[in-house]
Amino acid sequence: MTITSSPILSELKIDAARLDRSLHELAQIGKLPQGGISRVAFTPEDLLARQLVQTWMIEAGMTVRTDAAGNIIGRYEGLNSDAGAIATGSHIDTVPTGGIYDGCLGVLAGIEVVRALHDRAIRLYHPIEVIVFTDEERSVIGSKGMAGEVLEDAIYYARLDGTPIQECLDRIGGNWSQIATAKRKSGEMVAFVELHVEQGGVLEYLDKPIGIVTGVVGQYRFAVNVIGRANHAGTTPMNMRKDALVAASEIVLAVNKIACSIDGDQVATVGYLNVSPNATNTVPGMVDLRIDMRDLAEEHLQLLTAKLKAEINIIARTTETAISIQQTLHIRPTLADPQIMKSIEGICQNMGIAYTHLPSRAGHDAQEIGRFTAMGMIFVPSRAGVSHSADEYTSFEECARGASILLQTFLQLDNLDVKSR
Amino acid sequence: MTITSSPILSELKIDAARLDRSLHELAQIGKLPQGGISRVAFTPEDLLARQLVQTWMIEAGMTVRTDAAGNIIGRYEGLNSDAGAIATGSHIDTVPTGGIYDGCLGVLAGIEVVRALHDRAIRLYHPIEVIVFTDEERSVIGSKGMAGEVLEDAIYYARLDGTPIQECLDRIGGNWSQIATAKRKSGEMVAFVELHVEQGGVLEYLDKPIGIVTGVVGQYRFAVNVIGRANHAGTTPMNMRKDALVAASEIVLAVNKIACSIDGDQVATVGYLNVSPNATNTVPGMVDLRIDMRDLAEEHLQLLTAKLKAEINIIARTTETAISIQQTLHIRPTLADPQIMKSIEGICQNMGIAYTHLPSRAGHDAQEIGRFTAMGMIFVPSRAGVSHSADEYTSFEECARGASILLQTFLQLDNLDVKSR
Repeated sequence: MTITSSPILSELKIDAARLDRSLHELAQIGKLPQGGISRVAFTPEDLLARQLVQTWMIEAGMTVRTDAAGNIIGRYEGLNSDAGAIATGSHIDTVPTGGIYDGCLGVLAGIEVVRALHDRAIRLYHPIEVIVFTDEERSVIGSKGMAGEVLEDAIYYARLDGTPIQECLDRIGGNWSQIATAKRKSGEMVAFVELHVEQGGVLEYLDKPIGIVTGVVGQYRFAVNVIGRANHAGTTPMNMRKDALVAASEIVLAVNKIACSIDGDQVATVGYLNVSPNATNTVPGMVDLRIDMRDLAEEHLQLLTAKLKAEINIIARTTETAISIQQTLHIRPTLADPQIMKSIEGICQNMGIAYTHLPSRAGHDAQEIGRFTAMGMIFVPSRAGVSHSADEYTSFEECARGASILLQTFLQLDNLDVKSR
Repeated sequence: MTITSSPILSELKIDAARLDRSLHELAQIGKLPQGGISRVAFTPEDLLARQLVQTWMIEAGMTVRTDAAGNIIGRYEGLNSDAGAIATGSHIDTVPTGGIYDGCLGVLAGIEVVRALHDRAIRLYHPIEVIVFTDEERSVIGSKGMAGEVLEDAIYYARLDGTPIQECLDRIGGNWSQIATAKRKSGEMVAFVELHVEQGGVLEYLDKPIGIVTGVVGQYRFAVNVIGRANHAGTTPMNMRKDALVAASEIVLAVNKIACSIDGDQVATVGYLNVSPNATNTVPGMVDLRIDMRDLAEEHLQLLTAKLKAEINIIARTTETAISIQQTLHIRPTLADPQIMKSIEGICQNMGIAYTHLPSRAGHDAQEIGRFTAMGMIFVPSRAGVSHSADEYTSFEECARGASILLQTFLQLDNLDVKSR
């Protein structure tokens, strides 16, 4: 076997049919009778899928290890094994009723890129890493672990059914007590590029097959508790009420108004609201609601938060309710690396593929990895913007196009980085 | 035994201790370990309680029959058995976790009034009826049956667990197919006076031991369904949303505003609101909510309804949602009879008992009975306004005072009605 950084690189192609076969083979694991996939992290289905993907990595000439956060790291050596890796990856866990593309496309396209190189016995200057991140759908503990962003609080990471995170990580070959060792040094990884389905409808709406992601938005979440006084809806005069739902309704409208009160693309939503005791003949005594805010600019999120808190103070006073607000999630935005964006743009132009720039308004592993190294993301369309559903769909051609651009991006980044040293 | 309409009437007294013993004996049936009573209509507990009350009626010299609506009618003959009855009564069924006074006080005070007469072998000119109405807490089928207001729709009266109303009525000696026979002619009953705990906090707040009810408010209920479009809370721009919760929040505030927009004591409440899919990261696609409106003036309820529908049209248009509104309950208000109110007032003055006039903002059997005969209600205080709860409480003295006034009211109405013929 001749190992070479070679002139035939320009002819290198991914095998679209093989990528498609892998996607559908992986989709057998956790397949639901009514359609869709259930492969929640740490379940037997997740373990089976992890096993299969590791087999494929080894077959593609990679060495495979699992870090303390349970991330599977497939490494395809470079001509210079001391150089920082060019990395890709995503996740293979799903929401309880997920689709077959979310996450999996990114992992399998990464493996396909390596297969294409391995088939022709080509090595790049840099090592390549293909990473399966742990539990992207809930705790994001895999990519957070790699970024050194995991909280020390084991309780926070316990599963909904009470299973401790220690046990979960043990199952997949991770190790909670060693979680700090999962953190990567920035020099170990010179770039990270994640291919993912859009999970939104922008590309389809604009009829662009490729999205070049400008960054992954920050997310703030708040839990709001409104305490009024439950009372008989017949016998309590209007002016003697402390109606928690009236106060909560004012908060819902305030959230909506605040999101539209400044220029920009920020979004804010009350998606969850729960009334107690929730009886037609009772003035609501308590409401719990949750607020989700997202934007690429952290200063926008901070401004929205300040406005929200000011409004809530006014609402509590005028409705005579007690309102508490607690931030339950604080994910900082991550901007994509300009050089990586430029590379992807050039590749699309060369290949004659239409593209658009757009932010990712859903969270991704790239958001965490972008905290310590140059990050980029390539989006391919989601039919009707649907994701986290059995109806999630991205066509064979769209998947293949994304994987081809991922391959070309790797080749260009390999070259760029060599030139720059 | 001498039967006489006698001069000793003025010395007649109820036996407060006996009333209290009956209340507590009845409260043993359906007693919950954690406190409170569960004696939902048509359950084995309800059947046991109905048995016990019938025994007491017979011991007090009454003949007992059950009509097609399952109402237990205890009749204590009068000197003129052709005269229309002076009636009282209430209910002994409870909500799933009820208290021991709601309904039971009215039934047992009625029996106590008859016991007091029977003990001294006294008969009034008019027959007395003490009525246990069927299922006051849910369908009000008993008093509606007597008023000829039962719908023909058997499905409407099916229980939550699916048990048909036919089977329910069979259990208690009623008969769905004969329900029309439960209807009373107005001449058969010259007056109906119901003693009940207030289930609100007005008497306690005003420190008045007796409330003379001016009427029972009408109730309108509406089911409102708001359909927007469920979407990803991250990827859906603010201006592309059809947020069902934003629309629903505007409805909640509109209901509150409308109730306060006209003079009067009308109340309107959104007590129930349910969001779908109710996930923090999803723009709400659908909201179901229920509106409850009450007032003594039906024209107020009609005006509020018209205003509500106009507001909902505007909200649907501005939020781009589809909103349907359906009236699910329409109970007309019933005013108390002025002569009965005046009698009770005079009795309170004679006995030196403080009182106030107030409407009943909760529904009662008297509301239905008042549709075909002169109706009055006597309220006694509910501690802290609490009802439908293990914490429901009215003191021994307050119960006794209510029963005494009920007795005196009977004596006075008996006399009045004789004089007026």
